[in-house]
Amino acid sequence: MPNDRLSATFSALADPTRRAILARLALGETTVGELAKPFKISGPAVSKHLRVLEQAGLIVRGREAQWRPCRIVPDPLKEVDGWLGHYRRFWDASLDRLGDYLQQLQGKDKRRGRKKRKGESRRD
Amino acid sequence: MPNDRLSATFSALADPTRRAILARLALGETTVGELAKPFKISGPAVSKHLRVLEQAGLIVRGREAQWRPCRIVPDPLKEVDGWLGHYRRFWDASLDRLGDYLQQLQGKDKRRGRKKRKGESRRD
Repeated sequence: MPNDRLSATFSALADPTRRAILARLALGETTVGELAKPFKISGPAVSKHLRVLEQAGLIVRGREAQWRPCRIVPDPLKEVDGWLGHYRRFWDASLDRLGDYLQQLQGKDKRRGRKKRKGESRRD
Repeated sequence: MPNDRLSATFSALADPTRRAILARLALGETTVGELAKPFKISGPAVSKHLRVLEQAGLIVRGREAQWRPCRIVPDPLKEVDGWLGHYRRFWDASLDRLGDYLQQLQGKDKRRGRKKRKGESRRD
């Protein structure tokens, strides 16, 4: 398990079974038994994946002996999202366009408000 | 190196030095020598990190013997962004609100267009 949290998160996510477990938990909390069902791996193997996810802070597990529901904790994923933000401009020019569009719409909104009051003719 | 691309990407990102290299490359392509300067690790260690990034498709390296500029390739990061999309609702309620706001504005826009043509009274 890497020392820094972002590395720990990325390391935990670098496995398709662990991502599948997260995808299931995104639907709601559930037991280890239910989580294990779709996978053709042993119970201990599932438990090991859960421990990795837990150590990375991506899930928490209840402490009751019989019913230990697992629940997703989104904070580390939010950190990944923040980190990705530095690179999003490489593919998401639409973010800029959306910003421009909002400004345009808001501009129109204001101009129309003024025109309505002053009875000016429409320019846009 | 994991078999599936998303795992390979996460695995490559699970190291602070490799993320620092990507951050430098986000500013523009540069040589291995320039990339190595800020790190207190050997040239071969930097080269090894670059190989991991290259194998994960996160960077490409020029083929010229003397001048082998490294360049970031955003596609794998875009895939991570897409994957994160399934979880973004856990922290980004503002996305929903933005969508609602856009619909509201567009709705107003359409209604105003109709009213202008038909001379209807304002309802909103």
